Amino acid sequence: MRPRLRDLGIIIGTYPPGRENAITDVPGVQVGHTTLIYDQPRTARTGVTIILPRPESEHDDHVFAGYHQLNGCGEMTGIAWLQESGTLTSPIALTNTHQVGTVHDALVNYAIQQYGTGTFHLSVVAETWDGWLNDADAFHLTQEHVFAAIRAARGGPVAEGNVGGGTGMICHDFKGGIGTASRQLPAGYILGALVQSNYGHYSRSLLRVDGVPVGREIPPSLVPTPFNSPPAGNSIIVILATDAPLLPCQCRRLAQRATIGLARTGCVGHNGSGDLFLAFATGNHLPAGADAALPLQMLPNHHLNDFFEAAAEAVEEAVLNALSAAETMTGWQGRTAYALPLDELQRIMRRYGHSAAAAGLPQR
Amino acid sequence: MRPRLRDLGIIIGTYPPGRENAITDVPGVQVGHTTLIYDQPRTARTGVTIILPRPESEHDDHVFAGYHQLNGCGEMTGIAWLQESGTLTSPIALTNTHQVGTVHDALVNYAIQQYGTGTFHLSVVAETWDGWLNDADAFHLTQEHVFAAIRAARGGPVAEGNVGGGTGMICHDFKGGIGTASRQLPAGYILGALVQSNYGHYSRSLLRVDGVPVGREIPPSLVPTPFNSPPAGNSIIVILATDAPLLPCQCRRLAQRATIGLARTGCVGHNGSGDLFLAFATGNHLPAGADAALPLQMLPNHHLNDFFEAAAEAVEEAVLNALSAAETMTGWQGRTAYALPLDELQRIMRRYGHSAAAAGLPQR
Amino acid sequence: MRPRLRDLGIIIGTYPPGRENAITDVPGVQVGHTTLIYDQPRTARTGVTIILPRPESEHDDHVFAGYHQLNGCGEMTGIAWLQESGTLTSPIALTNTHQVGTVHDALVNYAIQQYGTGTFHLSVVAETWDGWLNDADAFHLTQEHVFAAIRAARGGPVAEGNVGGGTGMICHDFKGGIGTASRQLPAGYILGALVQSNYGHYSRSLLRVDGVPVGREIPPSLVPTPFNSPPAGNSIIVILATDAPLLPCQCRRLAQRATIGLARTGCVGHNGSGDLFLAFATGNHLPAGADAALPLQMLPNHHLNDFFEAAAEAVEEAVLNALSAAETMTGWQGRTAYALPLDELQRIMRRYGHSAAAAGLPQR
Amino acid sequence: MRPRLRDLGIIIGTYPPGRENAITDVPGVQVGHTTLIYDQPRTARTGVTIILPRPESEHDDHVFAGYHQLNGCGEMTGIAWLQESGTLTSPIALTNTHQVGTVHDALVNYAIQQYGTGTFHLSVVAETWDGWLNDADAFHLTQEHVFAAIRAARGGPVAEGNVGGGTGMICHDFKGGIGTASRQLPAGYILGALVQSNYGHYSRSLLRVDGVPVGREIPPSLVPTPFNSPPAGNSIIVILATDAPLLPCQCRRLAQRATIGLARTGCVGHNGSGDLFLAFATGNHLPAGADAALPLQMLPNHHLNDFFEAAAEAVEEAVLNALSAAETMTGWQGRTAYALPLDELQRIMRRYGHSAAAAGLPQR
Repeated sequence: MRPRLRDLGIIIGTYPPGRENAITDVPGVQVGHTTLIYDQPRTARTGVTIILPRPESEHDDHVFAGYHQLNGCGEMTGIAWLQESGTLTSPIALTNTHQVGTVHDALVNYAIQQYGTGTFHLSVVAETWDGWLNDADAFHLTQEHVFAAIRAARGGPVAEGNVGGGTGMICHDFKGGIGTASRQLPAGYILGALVQSNYGHYSRSLLRVDGVPVGREIPPSLVPTPFNSPPAGNSIIVILATDAPLLPCQCRRLAQRATIGLARTGCVGHNGSGDLFLAFATGNHLPAGADAALPLQMLPNHHLNDFFEAAAEAVEEAVLNALSAAETMTGWQGRTAYALPLDELQRIMRRYGHSAAAAGLPQR
Repeated sequence: MRPRLRDLGIIIGTYPPGRENAITDVPGVQVGHTTLIYDQPRTARTGVTIILPRPESEHDDHVFAGYHQLNGCGEMTGIAWLQESGTLTSPIALTNTHQVGTVHDALVNYAIQQYGTGTFHLSVVAETWDGWLNDADAFHLTQEHVFAAIRAARGGPVAEGNVGGGTGMICHDFKGGIGTASRQLPAGYILGALVQSNYGHYSRSLLRVDGVPVGREIPPSLVPTPFNSPPAGNSIIVILATDAPLLPCQCRRLAQRATIGLARTGCVGHNGSGDLFLAFATGNHLPAGADAALPLQMLPNHHLNDFFEAAAEAVEEAVLNALSAAETMTGWQGRTAYALPLDELQRIMRRYGHSAAAAGLPQR
Repeated sequence: MRPRLRDLGIIIGTYPPGRENAITDVPGVQVGHTTLIYDQPRTARTGVTIILPRPESEHDDHVFAGYHQLNGCGEMTGIAWLQESGTLTSPIALTNTHQVGTVHDALVNYAIQQYGTGTFHLSVVAETWDGWLNDADAFHLTQEHVFAAIRAARGGPVAEGNVGGGTGMICHDFKGGIGTASRQLPAGYILGALVQSNYGHYSRSLLRVDGVPVGREIPPSLVPTPFNSPPAGNSIIVILATDAPLLPCQCRRLAQRATIGLARTGCVGHNGSGDLFLAFATGNHLPAGADAALPLQMLPNHHLNDFFEAAAEAVEEAVLNALSAAETMTGWQGRTAYALPLDELQRIMRRYGHSAAAAGLPQR
Repeated sequence: MRPRLRDLGIIIGTYPPGRENAITDVPGVQVGHTTLIYDQPRTARTGVTIILPRPESEHDDHVFAGYHQLNGCGEMTGIAWLQESGTLTSPIALTNTHQVGTVHDALVNYAIQQYGTGTFHLSVVAETWDGWLNDADAFHLTQEHVFAAIRAARGGPVAEGNVGGGTGMICHDFKGGIGTASRQLPAGYILGALVQSNYGHYSRSLLRVDGVPVGREIPPSLVPTPFNSPPAGNSIIVILATDAPLLPCQCRRLAQRATIGLARTGCVGHNGSGDLFLAFATGNHLPAGADAALPLQMLPNHHLNDFFEAAAEAVEEAVLNALSAAETMTGWQGRTAYALPLDELQRIMRRYGHSAAAAGLPQR
């Protein structure tokens, strides 16, 4: 069990994290993983991660949501309706590129179980590509794996690194995967982020940790890079959640701030990257069959600055938590993606004068 | 075999149609259907329609494309990449709402066959909902049905009405389905439209044919309307194609003009409708592995007016061709959607002074 | 004084109009015009129209708003902020293309008067081009003309045709200008539209009135067309207002339905056209200095269908009201734009079997 | 005369700069400023900056362009047409918030001089707010000031800091203003950035220089912060230029990467910020009156990665160049905005282990 970033004394930003420093700090939000790691009959390093926004009443109380993309070489289904209606009406599933179809089928079947026959459903399934470590063309995932991840969903601590949809992912040429973080905000609100981090292929040198050029300081001679030929795809999915009463257009603005956090860790939104961001807010209730004007609340726009800064921090830390948690993995065709060496990370941080400063930072 | 709209003497607009008055008039474009109509073990009134933009070189010469939506209660996968790159890199599949996953899986497998293992693919699958006539929860379609539609794809005349993805569709409370049309443009270019038409539920009264309020003139006492309770979904997918050298942003503008044609037939983009439009242009060649600046051509923007008007005409006529072609269908639970009565249509057009005027219209 | 369309027995759609059949039927909304028509020292056929969304509390209670464009060859300032914040924080001014700057300056000065010095303001000014009838390069409008229009703003009947920003406008090669209409909706809500209509140059043949091809039936031999050379620009600005509690994303969807109404009258969104639409909703209160979550109401999305249909109807009728009201005008360089001949209009409508049908239409 | 960032031994990124490390390194691009600094009769700390994309043939050979915004509390006129047509057909003017109108008027007059009477023009004017140091309500700028900036435009070195539109700007609570930088790219292309930097009010602590938390290390006790009450607005305008043959959709993607560079310096896109980005590409020729398909070139999409990284670097350095160049300024009501102390900057960089590393960085 590797430590999380914060356990290394590296603090990102100034807003305090929530209890678990995880997206599940947002009341009601649950996360579940199915992780497939085996070598026979074909090599599996893949999985699916499920995020349930409001599981206790998911089919009769939708949440507001918004979407933004930094670069669109990727897929997130269900976005036409999310943008049109301003609502998220489906669980969120994160998986590998080639199994979007299977996972979509599974979410449709899950919705039919919930809502009954004769209904129709637009599901949210997002992907990043794990075909370097995973024999992706074996199509390991079945609908049952998705149902298992839904059943496994719960609040509290969230497993990170080589789990769920993040199992076979690579980030800045280190082993990547699932990461999460959260931030406490004024007036008692909370904001959480979860990432499936697979971006930055061929770009180790861009990796920064709290501004320190860590990637440049760990050359291939120290830790080998994966990929002997250009990888087919590299992407990051970011899910942001908050319990504040944000309107759909405010959720979209929040989602856009994922770019800020990612830019700090070294992401530039490469051409072959699917950098897709979804933010939802549970602070309002939207009963499905409402027949009169619904009472809502709306955070005044000028209160959003804290949320914007906290979203950037949480996304930055979630990526770094994925890198901290993910262990070295050998997969398909004997290929190996190496973990970020945490002792080396600490040495570099110290060399750049950061650990002390970070440790001494006053919380606002 | 029912006549097409034009065979009834009803001419939409002033641009002359192409040879087949079909999307396949655009050189190289092919269309294939798989149609499932059976009653045992469970009722199937569904299918899949495939459009191949440039089948002779589809994996090494992509086409420029653009996207627009009138209302987003629907799904078209692959759009993030289409919008980001300006290109269409996949066949287009039209099917029913709940089988987007299966069809997506099939297109991924098809792409792997074409491009080889270890590659990654973002496929374009769009849907409308046929769950009133079709037992949608039976999930009739398999990947093999998709492959069969791809194999069946060809140029020339296109089957319309109760075929392919349009099999179980309903439009303005008459039987709907697949329709197509085309227009010849100055300088020898051609433009084609294909629709999967399932919009206008509970809105027969809005149906217009060349401006004549045909829907209002055919009350339920004359032709019964379907639906004894609000339907779950209603939508239209529009695919536009041209051989002109349009850039991606020009394709997007072209796609937006589908709204004009649809507004003329009576569409308003209802809240529960997925009115999603994709336009592609084969007039440029984009070799996949290009390593230097590519030579292109671009139609000057002020030449687009003809394309905009022709797109509106072709979409209007494609919807009406779907209504003309589709025959009365009885499906799941004995429900019946009735065909537009063509003799009554002609009577109404005459009563509104239109058939003569239409017949005498000078071509520009 | 020419009659309005409805006075001719021509009814658009099925929703009943409000008391004035004008945007001012939305409680609190006010409209004012400054109209400049003179020949010395240089020919003026121009003006400015002001719409005040909530004048009684405009600087401390903003309204939600949304934006959509059919074609972007035009200008509406202030839209970046409107889209980002979801709010309209400025009066709306409609004028001619080359005086956007002067009118913008005036609105900034007006805002400084309201809010005090040291504040900053993003104003909404939209334009269409009147340089065929108006000597546009004379820059007739001053800031004082804008202040006069603001002072003139009031509720009740709205002057249409050759007034305000619409003074020198041309539509479908007839004299165009300002038009308005409104519709009553379920639950007591109301929706109003106001247009500055200058689109459809060189496209008389596309003009339709309730589906009847009126433009085609009035050849240049009957009523001469303007323009002996291609005009520099042609556009339409549409403002929609409602007192329903719509969220910003719902306002955007409403604005998009202006396209539906315009498509019915014959607009296709030509390349050289600035077809820009703004919708605002006064049903919520947004006190400017709010420091806690604001209480709001939201119309459920599935209630929007009535608003969408009514918006299409109101926009369609507003354009036709502009054409009905606008009188033949001779302007710069002796050029003449002819009014739509209303007696001929009625003859054509009868010939196409419409007047009786229209008269007998049951209201829903 | 203060040194530029690079003169301090602080190197941003790895792409080499062009000859002047300025947007004018893109062949043909010219920049001109008018700077107003005086105290009588009212305090002026304002101006206007003009960027001419292709002055030698600006009215008959437009350039492709794209737009992106991080946060929309600001104004850039002309964007509807830029996005619709994919072209930039106007000079770009940067000024203060309240004089958008005057500058717009001036650009219209300038265009009339160029294109002749009876034409119509949509001009690009962007703004940030200088009303803390400048008596903005005095409306100092006249059209003649804009014409003077156009006449002053030339290639070669670009004045930075307290000049042109940047005269009265503030950034991260230090004196801000105009900054520029450029990067050389593979295949001989070049990319330049120019910023009018006025963002980050109340956010000195977020300022980073090459990752080092410089803002946090210069507390108000060392260098006082401006503002004794919340400022009315804070924003950044970014203009990117390249001579590569980018299509409009590629320009849009390039513009979006301004966010990456800004995130690295500490921008989060606050609610009251107008963070508006425009990118243009001169690598294609678009003769205005073209009547046949135009020959173009297009950089393959996978070549964009270098441009994306270089754009981020150039924007980051342009902001820091603005901060390096801008001198302490006292303005309206005796208020003072202090310059970034460059000796302190160097001390901090050394303390964080950066100056040596930066100096020793190999150029790619």
